[in-house]
Parts: sequence; structure tokens; C-alpha cells
Amino acid sequence: MSQAVIDDNEVDIVIGALRSDLTTFMNEWRPIFSRFHLIIIKDPDLKEELKIPEGFSADVYAKADIEQVVGSSIRFTGYSCRYFGFLISRKKFVVCIDDDCVPAKDNAGYLVDAVAQHVSNLQTPATPFFFNTLYDPFRKGADFVRGYPFSLREGVVCALSCGLWLNMADLDAPTQALKPSQRNLRYVDAVLTVPARALAPLSGINIAFNRQAIGPAIGPALRLSGEGKLRWETVEDIWCGMCVKVICDHLGLGVKSGLPYVWRTERGNAVESLKKEWEGVKLMEDVVPFFQSLKLPQSATTAEDCVVEMAKTVKEQLGKVDPMFSQAAEAMVEWVKLWKTVASA
Amino acid sequence: MSQAVIDDNEVDIVIGALRSDLTTFMNEWRPIFSRFHLIIIKDPDLKEELKIPEGFSADVYAKADIEQVVGSSIRFTGYSCRYFGFLISRKKFVVCIDDDCVPAKDNAGYLVDAVAQHVSNLQTPATPFFFNTLYDPFRKGADFVRGYPFSLREGVVCALSCGLWLNMADLDAPTQALKPSQRNLRYVDAVLTVPARALAPLSGINIAFNRQAIGPAIGPALRLSGEGKLRWETVEDIWCGMCVKVICDHLGLGVKSGLPYVWRTERGNAVESLKKEWEGVKLMEDVVPFFQSLKLPQSATTAEDCVVEMAKTVKEQLGKVDPMFSQAAEAMVEWVKLWKTVASA
Repeated sequence: MSQAVIDDNEVDIVIGALRSDLTTFMNEWRPIFSRFHLIIIKDPDLKEELKIPEGFSADVYAKADIEQVVGSSIRFTGYSCRYFGFLISRKKFVVCIDDDCVPAKDNAGYLVDAVAQHVSNLQTPATPFFFNTLYDPFRKGADFVRGYPFSLREGVVCALSCGLWLNMADLDAPTQALKPSQRNLRYVDAVLTVPARALAPLSGINIAFNRQAIGPAIGPALRLSGEGKLRWETVEDIWCGMCVKVICDHLGLGVKSGLPYVWRTERGNAVESLKKEWEGVKLMEDVVPFFQSLKLPQSATTAEDCVVEMAKTVKEQLGKVDPMFSQAAEAMVEWVKLWKTVASA
Repeated sequence: MSQAVIDDNEVDIVIGALRSDLTTFMNEWRPIFSRFHLIIIKDPDLKEELKIPEGFSADVYAKADIEQVVGSSIRFTGYSCRYFGFLISRKKFVVCIDDDCVPAKDNAGYLVDAVAQHVSNLQTPATPFFFNTLYDPFRKGADFVRGYPFSLREGVVCALSCGLWLNMADLDAPTQALKPSQRNLRYVDAVLTVPARALAPLSGINIAFNRQAIGPAIGPALRLSGEGKLRWETVEDIWCGMCVKVICDHLGLGVKSGLPYVWRTERGNAVESLKKEWEGVKLMEDVVPFFQSLKLPQSATTAEDCVVEMAKTVKEQLGKVDPMFSQAAEAMVEWVKLWKTVASA
């Protein structure tokens, strides 16, 4: 499937453990994960001991480990625990998959190697400046369509690979509650670059990124006051995705969406989550126009610079709308400080 | 497959006949085309009589018919003959498929009803202002992903549906000559809206559009001096696609790409075409930045207005680069005049 030649030493797999028993999860992923180094971050709110089966090269970090390194007010609870793994990784590529997902099968019934596909997405160029109707031109059997300017065919570095999900799609709670029996069963055999200046909602469920290129831009920031332990009760990844996309556009980097799929199992009750989720749904009405009009200064030439500049504008413009945004801006600044400290340690 | 309820009276199928014997083509399409009205335009350069099998509701137009209506210097030869069909159609939707394509089969082996899929694409909204990672949210089993702003979920009118091709992909002559045995065999089961402000190369091989919304923007304009009778020797459709996309962005209309596929058979010799094609390939280096920076005035509120305004800027800016662009600008202005004349007749 994938053409990538993967150097195991270039990849960390980061797992945020929101539940204690990872036995099934790890065993399902064994054929794919076992050759890589794993960083498992235990949600600081989780009381029980983690259950992790034998046979993996895994480093596990819990509340005490986080506190020792961080010492700041950034909150690494819930889904945000995985950001600690992004912080302490030393690899070029990070792959991160939620603990309620197992490997998917493709249309031919073969197990999808999500890591190989993510790394392939990151190792081949992205093409954000012109849309290729034949999808990813760097895939085997594909190419640039007639009319695609030759000067743009070299592409740019792909910084972020956003994978998709079969079975449970990543819907918001209202949609999930309205369509409780809806399942995402269409395996779309494609990867594409999200065009420059187009924003997309990043679902943090199944992602990979080039840590060297964009690492500091992927951090914990926006936290809903009623944030829970279910994806549809959070917007932290959506927010982060907006930040990363704007930064990638500014720095001339690419974001891909599509393959690989993972199989997402059911968790939670959408109807019970509805009350919490509306908070996030409402915020998007302010967040999206903000990011669509956001321009970063030419002086911002690194991901760190961009996050700091962005945080200023978030505080100035969105801070008036809701104090959550001011807190997000502060967390972004702190995150960059922390990133630099850990990087230089 | 498709959810569209199609009113036969709303659809014209336009076929540009570049070869005289349409027997195989029409018989292959019979299960799909026979319920619709067909407009067949014979390439004015074609000398032989057209062979069209029985059993279709088809109106055929040849050189004399074109001359009677047009009486202008716009050239309707080669692939551009089909534009005459767009002009004289009176239907809401036009579907247009090249005469070297036959129906494709989907992953399950079923015949693809390209007309039903195109009409479905045009009847359901497009979502150009935010990218939906779950592809077309209006397809059965799909929806908007978490984080998609509710205020943008209504979408906009889809004006243009660009289908794809199995077997022979629409490559340029250099790529085709470099990879003579390459075939496009991946059936990507998706439709997506090309985001606002992203440009894509329109391949005119397999398209449909809302004639009421955008008809006057789909006309003959850029013609290479060495233009031939093979797709890779032309850029007329690529140019037209840039115009339409910029106009759709300006008017708040959408463009979709993806399904339906057609099966494209082999024709021509890429190596022999190479010399001609480089002309088009080189032009794209000027054309793409031009359209990427083109802004239409707020006073342009119809497709006709937009084409006329666009023609002015083409003449001013690109006219200096190559006289072909000045001729394209003149053809655009003439086309709009012709469109208005025919519409009011």
C-alpha cells in the first residue's frame, strides 16, 4: 500500500491513555506498533493502574512525571495528556491514535498499516497551492493532472497528516444524537492536500506530524469549561488544527487529509453529552471567521514565532468574546516556553 | 448510488463528435443516456457523415447549423464544438462527456450512472467555505464532521460538477509520454467541494453544470495555435475551468470534483503530441498566477458580468505576454454577446 521506507528511529507513537486497560487496544495494534518506540501518557485524572501487555518498547508517563517536567499551569488532563508525549518525543515524526481505535481493513479486506501510511504522507510532498483532481500525485499510479503548473509540482514539506475513521465518524454530539445508528462505512481510497487558505476541522483521533517542522504548533490550548472525556465533548484538537493550518499556510508547509483509516469503536452517550457540546459548537461560530481572517507577520519565521504571534491576536480579538479564549492564548505562550525549555534540556 | 430525483426535462446531454462513428459510444451509454434529450455537435472540421444508432432523442448540429446561429468569429472546431451545444440548450443542467469515454464500473462491479451522479452533485449544496474531512456531507451515510460551523452547513448552490476518469487519466503529453503504460485504476469513492480560493485544472472530459447559474462562463476562449484533436493538445477546458472557478468564488457558488468516473479509452500518440503540448504547459505558468490574484469587482453580479470584467483584465495583463490571450479575451466578450442573443431569441 504505502511506498514509504520507514526508519523506526524517526518515529514515535504517542498514546494518550484515557482508560486503564489498554490490553485489547495494544494487542490489536501489535502487528503495526511493535517495531516502534511508544510513548504512553496516562491521563492525570485516571486513578487505576495502566494495564499494558508485554512485548512493546514503551515508556509510560503518569501525573508525577508530567509535574516534574512541566511545573506550569498548562493542564494535561483528558485528551490533552498526549501533548506531553509530543513534548518529550525526540523523533522527527509523531503518530498519535486514540485508545478507542483499532486497525481498519481496506476495501480488499487487508489490515491497514496506519503508521506506514502516515509516514508516507509526511515523507512525500504536499501540494497546497493548486488542487490536483487526481488526489495525491505522489501515490503509486497517480500523477499530476493536465494543466497542473510544472513550477508547482515539486510541492512543499507535508507537516501534518490527518487520518480518518470507519465505523464511528467524528461527529459532534448534536449530529451523533440525531443519527445514533449512522456509521461511516465508506472507505475512500485517497489522500489529498488541503488547499492553502482553506480551513478544516482537525480531528485529533488519528494524526501524524513532522515534529521538527511544526511540533510547537501542536499543543494544548482551548479547553471548554465543561470538557469531558469524549471527543464530542472537546474542541481542543479542532482549535489546534486551525492554529496549525494557518501556521502551515504562513510557513509554506502542507496538510494532508484522507488515508489512513482506523476503526473507531463506540464510547459514550451522545444524548448525555449534548448539553456540554453545544458550548463547543457555539464557539466555532467565532473561531472560524477569526482564523479565516488571521494574518501572521512576515517576521514570524518559525512555528514558535507563529504560535506566540497568534496568541497575541487571540487574546486581543477573541479574548473579548469569551475568557476561555484568553486562557487559550496564555496556554499557547506557556506551551512555546515549555517546548523551548524541554528542547534545550 | 445517487439520491437524486432527476427530472428528465431538466437535463441535456451534450456530445461533441470529434469522430464520425458514434455507434459504439452511443450503444455503451444507451442504458444511461436513452431517457434524456441529447444534443450532438459535429466538429465542423469533420468531413464524414455521423453514424448515430437508433433509439435516442437526439438533435444533431453540424457546421451549417452553427454558422447560421453564430455568424461570429468564435471558433467552434475540435473540442470547442460542444460549446455550441451549451449555447443552444434550454435546460437547467447540462452533462457533457467526451466521445472516447464509456461508462465505468464501481468497486463492486456495477455500472456507474454518470448522469445521475452529476445531477446529484448539482442538486445538493456545495461547501466551499470550510473543508469537510468526511467529503461530501450531503451523500448518504455522510455528514459534517465535528467542528464544522453550523452557520456554514447550509452550503451554496453547486454550479459545476467535475467527474473523473478510469483507465486513461487526463495527463499532459509530457507525463503521458514519460509513463506510457500508466493507467488510472483507483476508484476513489468520493465527491468533494473544491475550497473557495483554491484553483483546480478543469478537465472537460466528463463534466456537468448548472446552465442557469453559470452557463455563460463556460465558453470557448483560449485556443493554442497548434491545437489538435486530442485532449493533451488543448488547454481550452483548463482555461475555462480557471474562469469558472474564479467566477464561482466571486458569486458564492460551488464546484465539486470526484465521482462520477467514466472509462476513458486510448486515443492518439503522446510522443507525437509532445511538441504541441509544451505550448500549453508553458502558458500555465502565466495563467495560474494571473487567476490566483484576479479579483472581480463587486459590481459584477452575474456570470455574464464576470466574464466581461475578466476579459478586460485578461487583455490588459496577459495580452502583453502572448497574443493568444488577447484573442481569448475577445472570444470571451463575443461569447457573452452570443449567449445573450441566443437567450433572448
